[in-house]
Amino acid sequence: MELTERVRQHFFDSIAAKEAAMDLLSPAIAAAAEKMMQSLIMDGKLMACGNGGSAADSQHFASEMVGRFERERPGLAALALSTDCSSLTAIGNDYDFDLVFSKQVHALGRAGDVLLAISPSGNAANVIAAIHAAHDRQMGVIALTGRDGGQIGELLAGDDIHLCVPSNRTARIQEVHITIIHALCDAVDYLLLGGE
Amino acid sequence: MELTERVRQHFFDSIAAKEAAMDLLSPAIAAAAEKMMQSLIMDGKLMACGNGGSAADSQHFASEMVGRFERERPGLAALALSTDCSSLTAIGNDYDFDLVFSKQVHALGRAGDVLLAISPSGNAANVIAAIHAAHDRQMGVIALTGRDGGQIGELLAGDDIHLCVPSNRTARIQEVHITIIHALCDAVDYLLLGGE
Ligand SMILES: O=P(O)(O)OC[C@@H](O)[C@H]1O[C@H](O)[C@@H](O)[C@@H](O)[C@@H]1O
Ligand SMILES: O=P(O)(O)OC[C@@H](O)[C@H]1O[C@H](O)[C@@H](O)[C@@H](O)[C@@H]1O
Repeated sequence: MELTERVRQHFFDSIAAKEAAMDLLSPAIAAAAEKMMQSLIMDGKLMACGNGGSAADSQHFASEMVGRFERERPGLAALALSTDCSSLTAIGNDYDFDLVFSKQVHALGRAGDVLLAISPSGNAANVIAAIHAAHDRQMGVIALTGRDGGQIGELLAGDDIHLCVPSNRTARIQEVHITIIHALCDAVDYLLLGGE
Repeated sequence: MELTERVRQHFFDSIAAKEAAMDLLSPAIAAAAEKMMQSLIMDGKLMACGNGGSAADSQHFASEMVGRFERERPGLAALALSTDCSSLTAIGNDYDFDLVFSKQVHALGRAGDVLLAISPSGNAANVIAAIHAAHDRQMGVIALTGRDGGQIGELLAGDDIHLCVPSNRTARIQEVHITIIHALCDAVDYLLLGGE
């Protein structure tokens, strides 16, 4: 019974995190979808990165872009930077784990591409390095963070978009991140294909 | 403005999905955490599988078990079956894509281990095959599904636990799944370590 109550509390807290984020972030999420769509129609690509649960989220995002989300359409150009374990271990072993994403951004990123940088703390060193690399490559940046936005909040520039979830608990922030990712997938499809 | 409203609707719907799932599923989520804990203390392991966003969820789960969730503790024995692209492509190419998870369950699964089988539709053929393999190996099964539970709902046996999210939209089901996964991680830590 006590354990069931503990489980219910997760649902309560998750609902509260979404209520807190909804009005605050929806306009910027819509702007982020516009930014992604602009990149895609100019033949750009979307590159996503993050660690742990956020690596999972970046792969979830890329799979819904390359495969499908809810509607049939041609695959969209997106890739997650956490999937090539050969690159991750090679860069981590030969250089530094902080460079595992940024080396890939330098190698694959082109002006007009968009980096989706995911870090609930806003302080993941390899995600920060990836944002610097995206700036070097004249890519746009959309950052999904939480808490106070961390160091990522401070280094975003000009047209970059910061979606900072107002929560201090990583699990709750991630639960809002996946809803944001689904809203982005839907909004990009809507912008490209129109209403159903 | 229209796009912002569309984004807000995702949050509304996601909150509604959690409200619908909370009371319905919390007792069974608590039971699932007990089942995982029993396996772990008997030296068993947890194997998670799913496709697309559910592959991401199974990897998210394994990374929080092997690394950490919120509290420091020794790594717990969990693995995701969607991560070895060599095995996935070899089995998919040499045998059948429906066997990519079940071959791994037959190879690695032992009596007392637990399969976390994730399929929003309840009908993913390779997840269904993995459940059959888990039964062959006398493993427990915890299934995360949605809609009407699909074929998975029908093939679960004796002590298996079915967490079927009452929603018909894959994105919403996945958003509840990740909250269930976080609740499971927290409850397993709580059962193993006690209250903070
Ligand atoms: O520093 P962050 O970007 O917030 O990244 C956190 C991740 O490295 C992971 O840390 C722990 O393992 C858990 O909290 C995971 O959920 C999280 O993804
Ligand atoms: O049949 P399911 O287990 O529900 O699996 C669905 C997945 O294969 C993926 O299908 C589409 O690509 C999207 O809906 C993804 O979100 C989903 O994970």
